[in-house]
Parts: sequence; C-alpha cells; structure tokens
Amino acid sequence: MLASEPARGFPPAEYQSRVHAAQRQMEAAKLDGILLLSEPELLYFTGFQTLFWQSPTRPWFLFLPAQGDPIAIIPEIGAALMRQTGLRDIRTWSAPNPADDGISLLQDLLGPLAARKAQIGLLKGPETGLRMPLGDFDRLVQSLPGLKIADATPIIRGLRMVKSPAEIAKLAHICAIGSASFDAVPGFATPGQPLSTVFRDFRREALLLGADDVPYLVGGADQGGYIDVISPPSGRELQRGDILMLDTGSRFDGYFCDFDRNFAIGHADDLSRRAYDVLHRAVEAGLEAARPGATCRTVFAAMGKVIATMDQSGGDVGRAGHGLGLQLTEWPSFAGFDDTVLEENMVLTLEPSLSYGEGRMMVHEENIVITPSGPRLLSKRAAAELPVI
Amino acid sequence: MLASEPARGFPPAEYQSRVHAAQRQMEAAKLDGILLLSEPELLYFTGFQTLFWQSPTRPWFLFLPAQGDPIAIIPEIGAALMRQTGLRDIRTWSAPNPADDGISLLQDLLGPLAARKAQIGLLKGPETGLRMPLGDFDRLVQSLPGLKIADATPIIRGLRMVKSPAEIAKLAHICAIGSASFDAVPGFATPGQPLSTVFRDFRREALLLGADDVPYLVGGADQGGYIDVISPPSGRELQRGDILMLDTGSRFDGYFCDFDRNFAIGHADDLSRRAYDVLHRAVEAGLEAARPGATCRTVFAAMGKVIATMDQSGGDVGRAGHGLGLQLTEWPSFAGFDDTVLEENMVLTLEPSLSYGEGRMMVHEENIVITPSGPRLLSKRAAAELPVI
Repeated sequence: MLASEPARGFPPAEYQSRVHAAQRQMEAAKLDGILLLSEPELLYFTGFQTLFWQSPTRPWFLFLPAQGDPIAIIPEIGAALMRQTGLRDIRTWSAPNPADDGISLLQDLLGPLAARKAQIGLLKGPETGLRMPLGDFDRLVQSLPGLKIADATPIIRGLRMVKSPAEIAKLAHICAIGSASFDAVPGFATPGQPLSTVFRDFRREALLLGADDVPYLVGGADQGGYIDVISPPSGRELQRGDILMLDTGSRFDGYFCDFDRNFAIGHADDLSRRAYDVLHRAVEAGLEAARPGATCRTVFAAMGKVIATMDQSGGDVGRAGHGLGLQLTEWPSFAGFDDTVLEENMVLTLEPSLSYGEGRMMVHEENIVITPSGPRLLSKRAAAELPVI
Repeated sequence: MLASEPARGFPPAEYQSRVHAAQRQMEAAKLDGILLLSEPELLYFTGFQTLFWQSPTRPWFLFLPAQGDPIAIIPEIGAALMRQTGLRDIRTWSAPNPADDGISLLQDLLGPLAARKAQIGLLKGPETGLRMPLGDFDRLVQSLPGLKIADATPIIRGLRMVKSPAEIAKLAHICAIGSASFDAVPGFATPGQPLSTVFRDFRREALLLGADDVPYLVGGADQGGYIDVISPPSGRELQRGDILMLDTGSRFDGYFCDFDRNFAIGHADDLSRRAYDVLHRAVEAGLEAARPGATCRTVFAAMGKVIATMDQSGGDVGRAGHGLGLQLTEWPSFAGFDDTVLEENMVLTLEPSLSYGEGRMMVHEENIVITPSGPRLLSKRAAAELPVI
C-alpha cells in the first residue's frame, strides 16, 4: 500500500457547494431542475458510491431542484446507503418492477412542474447516455406534455471539469499508485511470459499498492511495435524485440488515473526508439502549452506539430488527450474541434499517438492538473528513452 | 490458475447461428433490422471484446439486417479489432467528433429503410439503456421520418437467455474460479483485518485463479449480521462475532459468475445460524423447483415459502435471482411479476434473502444451469451450516 491514502468521501459542505453551483447555473439557464440518471453524477452530487451499477436491471434517479436539496428516486435496495450520504428526501420503490420502475414516482415529482410548463435539464450531449429503458423514458415524457426538456450537459460538464483540491488529492493518489505499478512491470514482463499473465500481474500489483479496482487495462506487444491498443491480452509470450504497452485506468474512491507506459523487451529497435522520442517530445510540447487560458485546440496543435515529424497516419490522429476524474475519459478533448479554455484545477491527460513502420503504432500518456503557473504532473514522468526490460 | 480453461471466443459458426436466429425472429416480428448499441450485444453477435467501453466518449453501433451479414458502424480506433471478428462491412469515422459521432453513417444506412417506411428494432425494454447521446438519438430519429421503431428487447432477450454449450462451459469455468476464491477466504478474512483488505485480497485471489477481472465485489460485515450489501468496503476491522458476506461478479472471456458466501468470524450467533439455515433450505426449494417448464414465478414462490418462516421484511423481498451471462444480471427474474418459462440451458442465479434480528439481513446465492432433469449447480454448493472462520 502506498502511504498517505487520502480520506474517503468528501465533507458534506463539498457536496452542498456542488449542488449550489449547479443551482446558480440553472437559474442563469432558466431551468427548474436537472434530472440525473448516471453513476458519476449521482456520486458527484451525493457521494452515493456502489458497484451495484454493474447490474443494468435497476435505474437510479437524482433530481436537483432549482432551490433546495436534491431528491433521490431509487430502488429500495439502495435506500440505506443513500441515507448515509445525508440526503433526506429519498423516495424508493421495490425494484425491479418492469411495470413501473420509478416512473410513477417521477411523474409525482415532475407532474407539478409540467403543469406550469417548467423546463428541466437532462444530459443529452456528447459523452453521455440514457441509463434507463428508452421505452420507459418515452412513456414518461409523453405523460408530462407540458414539460420542456433542455440539455444540461454544458452545466454538468462545466462543474465536473474543474476539480476541487480534495478531488485532486484523490486523483494524485491513484496516479501515484499507477506510477508505482508501472515501476513494478520489469519484474514480471519478461521474455516467455504470456501477455495475459502480464495483465494479471499488473492488476494484482495495482491492487496491492492500494487501487480499489482496475476497471481498465489494455495494451499490446509485438515485434518492433504493437498494432492494436484496445484488445484483451492474448496468450502470446513476450519475446526479445517486442515493444510492450500497458494502459491502465485504476480507481481509488471513485477517481481514475489513465496513463500508459511503453517497454522494449530485451532490445529496442531504432524505429521504435525514435517513435518513443517523438512522443516524449510531443508530451513536452503539450506540457509547455497546457496553461490557464490556452484552448484544448492549441495544446492539441502543439503536440501535433511534433508528431507530424514522424507520423504516417495521414493526419487522422483523433484526439490527443482528455479530461479525467470520476470517469476514465471526461470532457474536454485535446482535439481540433474543442475550444474549451483551460482553467486552474482541470485534470487532464496528454495522450499523443503516432503510426510508424509497417502498420505499427505507439501511444504515450501522462496525467496533469492545471495550476496558475502551468501543468503539474500527477503521473511520474515517463523515462526520456524507451526503457528496455 | 484453475486447470482446463476453455478456449477464448467462439467458432465463427456460433456467431453466424446467433445472427440467423435473430433474423428468423425479425421475420416473424416484421422487422427490417435491429440496431444495437451496447457492449453485451456487440460481443454476443460479433465477438468484439474490449474494455474500451469503459470510456463513455464514443458510441458503437451494430446493425443486424433482416438478411445478410451484420454491419458495424464504429469509431476508427476499433476497426482493426472488429476486422479480427471476421465482420466484413465495417464503416468507421474519426471519433470523437461531437458534430457527427456516427450519425451521418447511420443516416446513410437507415435512409433507404426510412424511405420505404420500414420498421427496425431497438432495445427499449426493461434492463436496457441507450448508449449514445440522447440529443444525437433525437436528431437521428427526426432525420428519418418514415422509419418505424419497435422494441427488439423480446427478441434479444429470448436469444441471450438460452446459452450454448460453449457459453455454459465459460460460465462453469468462472463459477469454478469464484468457488475456489471463496474457499480461500478463511486464509485472509481473520479478526483484525480491515474489510477493505479482505476485498483487496479476494480480488487478487480471483485474478490469481484465472479471472480476467473482478468488476463486481460487494459485501458487508457486522456483529451478529450485516446491514447493507451494496456499500464499498469500510476500513472497519473484522471482529469475533461478525457475520461477513462477500458477493462477487468475476469475469472470464466476457462471462460473469454472480454468487456470494457468508462466514461467521470466530463465533456464529444462533439467530444468524438460523437465518443461514433458512436461506440454505430456500435454495434447496429453488433447486427442486427450477425445472424446464416451470415459471420464474413458481420458483420464486417455492423459495418465498421457506423464507417466510423467518423473514421480517414484511414480504417485500424484491426478486430472488436472475439470469446470468455476459452481464452480471440478465433477464429473467425470479420474481412475482415474471412468468418466463424455464428452458434447458438457461443460466440463472438463485438468490433468496431475508431480514432478521434488529435490522440485519442475509443473502445467499448459487448459480445454476437448467438441464432436462433439473438444475445443475455451477457454483460449488455452500456449506449446509454457516462456516466459522
């Protein structure tokens, strides 16, 4: 276990300040409430944390009214845990009940708002989904004909993008666990080890070091560079001359790290060494550019300029990093389409990638928090030269 | 690692037969195709397996036409992996692109269907969600005014509920890993150990025994019985007289186990021993009842009759088990509302629970597959008496 584990949860005042910040923005946007359905939002506004979200059976609802305390409409099985958050207005039903999985409770809550033609917000924008049956949603909306529904994504996105000091402490902790896990890789990623065993050992190491869970671990290994970065691990044994990449999203108290490391097994070929160097310098350019007031687009361009010296992908490099927090990937994106202005206390990944050789690719990622004087690394900076195991 | 790990994936013929079975039902339901958006469905029909679903940024689409091969509309980053599944029609875009995250590709595909007033299916029913931005979905539907959209849940549910022999082998394997993990619990769940450490040790053990991942682990421990079964673990140390419960959803090659075990630490109080006995007998009644031709409701009633001899919850016991497969919880439900008829090769959990003492609860769960002669246990049957560590 790493030392100095931050306290779990947040003081009640922090949840209250998040709700109040949302309410100030609701007033400006003329919203009479926001209805939230998804795990990160319920956790963010109440502290309600459970792996029960793994079951798709039951929907969960949290209503943030324009004034006053949030209202939870949740399956009875979650009532005791939700009470521990300090929330007082908790309305439950015996779920699952396919005939009425929270719908009549939502109608009771939203009916008076519909009657006065109120407008509420829902998450409808990029990087969101609808975590309830679409048929139930249609039925709910049709039963509330006066209700106007706006997109609350800009409000929620704006709040969640900028982290509090206590959130940053948790993110720093899980990034430190990730860094220490990567430091242990040379001990188990040796020639002859199947990639699937390397993945298993990495997960066990991260848990030992204090991660609650390792929901995300992808990677690849192949001679002179890997081809694919999202597959599950094969049983192929590591060989001298392989380039190995591991990318982890480990979690502590709800917060993710998200970064990767590259290793050469036994011997690093010249082209892979060069690709590594280009990516390392691209991250340096990103670190230089990622200051308060800069836009995501300009940081993306700064990294892209370095990548372009070697990349063979024809310019389609997608995005080169993103927000990080209660989700493995959050808004904003370091991409040509994203004009988000960087602010102090945003936590982000810098993640340039390039194509090289014959169909090979390389990715490299670091996690940062924006401070007034520029980015502070939360991940331990990768070695300047491709490490050889 | 447990011996006899099943081969990963399935032969191409198995995926083809799943698609053909869906197409036969589409014909009967007068559907010209089914559009799927979620992880278990893409995995079920193509074998496309990745943890990239952890990132909410990108939507993924699979269209099953009424005739012919499935069509994937996916982010470019998944193309190489999707090609490995053997799928030939793969249409990609550079994602994320908030201005057009697959929408114009979907319009190209569905436009001709809309023009001839065709009807397609989407998952809209219980235990499903919409894994794409609601705003994009609204925009898509509005751009295809002739298109009729029906609920495809009954078709997909019907197919996925009945497992193939190869699926059952994977489920049996992960259940065996779960059983062996529980066998190891007395080695690390000892007085003085914090519950969070017990969770950590359990995860590491399951990985060591061959689980790919442990996405779900919940539990509780308290004097004379636990109160809450969905919380993350606290740092509270186990004490003599605690009843400890651990419930795991570990995964192998995409397939989950889902069962729990109870332990008394040092000493088992009489009331908890009695609750354990009632639950053990309730499962026996479930095992007796769960035969081909029985309904979920009758199995639920058989377990409920035993539970009622002790349960203090006032009859609101929710459901007492569910389907199991590519998701931790699947259709059907052992519940009063579910008239699903049990068929050979359904894989299910029997999960009775009861309230006792002063606000205590106990849960007990086993995993089974339905055979012509009755259920076969996939989990190693729990001891008949509450084990004392």
